[in-house]
Amino acid sequence: MSLSEFSLIQRFFTQKKSRNACTRLGVGDDCALLSIPAGHELAITTDTMVENVHFFADTDPEQLGHKLLTVNLSDLASMGAKPVSVLLALTIPNVNEPWLSAFAKGFMDLAERYEVDLVGGDTTSGPLTLTVQALGVVPQGQALRRSAAKVGDFICLTGPIGDAGLGLKINEGYGCADPEPALRQFNKPEPQIDAGLAIRECANACIDISDGLTSDLGHILKQSQVGACIYWQALPLSDAVQTYIEETGDWRMPLVAGDDYQLCFTVSPDHIGQLTIDCVKIGVIESEPGLRLNKSGIIEFLEVKGFEHFS
Amino acid sequence: MSLSEFSLIQRFFTQKKSRNACTRLGVGDDCALLSIPAGHELAITTDTMVENVHFFADTDPEQLGHKLLTVNLSDLASMGAKPVSVLLALTIPNVNEPWLSAFAKGFMDLAERYEVDLVGGDTTSGPLTLTVQALGVVPQGQALRRSAAKVGDFICLTGPIGDAGLGLKINEGYGCADPEPALRQFNKPEPQIDAGLAIRECANACIDISDGLTSDLGHILKQSQVGACIYWQALPLSDAVQTYIEETGDWRMPLVAGDDYQLCFTVSPDHIGQLTIDCVKIGVIESEPGLRLNKSGIIEFLEVKGFEHFS
Repeated sequence: MSLSEFSLIQRFFTQKKSRNACTRLGVGDDCALLSIPAGHELAITTDTMVENVHFFADTDPEQLGHKLLTVNLSDLASMGAKPVSVLLALTIPNVNEPWLSAFAKGFMDLAERYEVDLVGGDTTSGPLTLTVQALGVVPQGQALRRSAAKVGDFICLTGPIGDAGLGLKINEGYGCADPEPALRQFNKPEPQIDAGLAIRECANACIDISDGLTSDLGHILKQSQVGACIYWQALPLSDAVQTYIEETGDWRMPLVAGDDYQLCFTVSPDHIGQLTIDCVKIGVIESEPGLRLNKSGIIEFLEVKGFEHFS
Repeated sequence: MSLSEFSLIQRFFTQKKSRNACTRLGVGDDCALLSIPAGHELAITTDTMVENVHFFADTDPEQLGHKLLTVNLSDLASMGAKPVSVLLALTIPNVNEPWLSAFAKGFMDLAERYEVDLVGGDTTSGPLTLTVQALGVVPQGQALRRSAAKVGDFICLTGPIGDAGLGLKINEGYGCADPEPALRQFNKPEPQIDAGLAIRECANACIDISDGLTSDLGHILKQSQVGACIYWQALPLSDAVQTYIEETGDWRMPLVAGDDYQLCFTVSPDHIGQLTIDCVKIGVIESEPGLRLNKSGIIEFLEVKGFEHFS
């Protein structure tokens, strides 16, 4: 990183001080240095957001900074990991100070809420492309893996689905009596960090709903070599999403729309009583492969797919 | 990551098996999991390369994959860290299979040489932008920091400088009798991993020469709050670079050109005898701020700058 890039990053992204006990050395050297607590493993993930693919040029930069970090912290949440630090690779066409300042505010406000340090990054000129690498810690052997679902497990959600999808429909022109909650879920979703930590000791498999329930639950089913049945009546849907379905007939939307960032996890009947957070049971893991939806007694077979680039 | 993206990554970037003892869980879940050896810290860095900024569309993809990884591993080398794993965030305009296959070969061949596992990533569609996050381990408190140079230290280089810069000049039209070595250094530089590990116990400060000697040594001087004098006669310059200087008069090129990826480090006279690798003493750390070049007894004051975006 050149001196001017470093100054740029420093100016907009400087934290008042390191907030996380794992940080040994932050921004300003060739590498950052972290210490990982004894008995813990490091969880790492990376996600990229590209202008005109994941967001439009007129997206509010403060919400974009928040969402970029949410997308990455959500992957840590779904492993039951506690976030400790992030790196930010920022490719920007030019130095737009108001934009950078607002973007940094959205990003850093969320980072500070979870005591996450921004410990490094790279700033380059080019088409707007935002990549975060997030690092978290989890006690050895306790990470929640997609491959750990067992036949008989309940399938649970940490909160409602379909609101982000409804936000996208509203942006595309759908008229909604009370659009704000859905738009907020689409534009400024929250990572389910606390839920991931709370379910870690009793859940088996877990994933975050970033690509849509059927797609993401499908990953659990495939990697655990099981199937599932979910119950339409049990799905947590907001009034606005229910109204959308009544008006359009598009009942699949909350099942396939992405960007909700709720956690979908499985837990055995023996451990369901130990859950310390509110969540909703939506179905059961079964030995029969495939994903089935029980809709008032009628079984629909759901295709396991969500949003795919290059498809 | 959607199923199709995951298949894409899997197809081109799958390793035969995990090679690094730190890897607990690789590609395929929301996060990868690493275990860090007791008594060690984690070193992390990220670097991005953007088409038409860091490389041209016709760049050989195998060399590009190699260079992208070198740029990142070089940051680990300069801290004295041993690389263990990498994540790759790949933004590509389309699925060009021959390009991806060659790019992956260049990347994975170098990764396998250093037993580095590719443990995760993200694939998105968009303008060609390549971001790597590299993770390494270093014994607690032994990382080589930019801020650790002491007055009286010798300044050393692990190898010649200016060849990558000459490669760029050749690409821009300069006629060179033997262009191959310079072009190789520019297109396919090697990270000085082994040198970083070898000097870790006796060096003070260290940095990699990615932005040019004056710029990168300048970071050490600034962060260590010292100055330096380097000696023109001592600089390790290849015959081709010397010929270039004779023909063009451009003696500053090897001082300011980037992409050499040699390490520049400082070592106290008490410890210089303990160095177990070949390296070249080029100057001395002084208390007087600034960077001076002694050119046959005449002192030139060097501006501390290299390649800068947005300047």
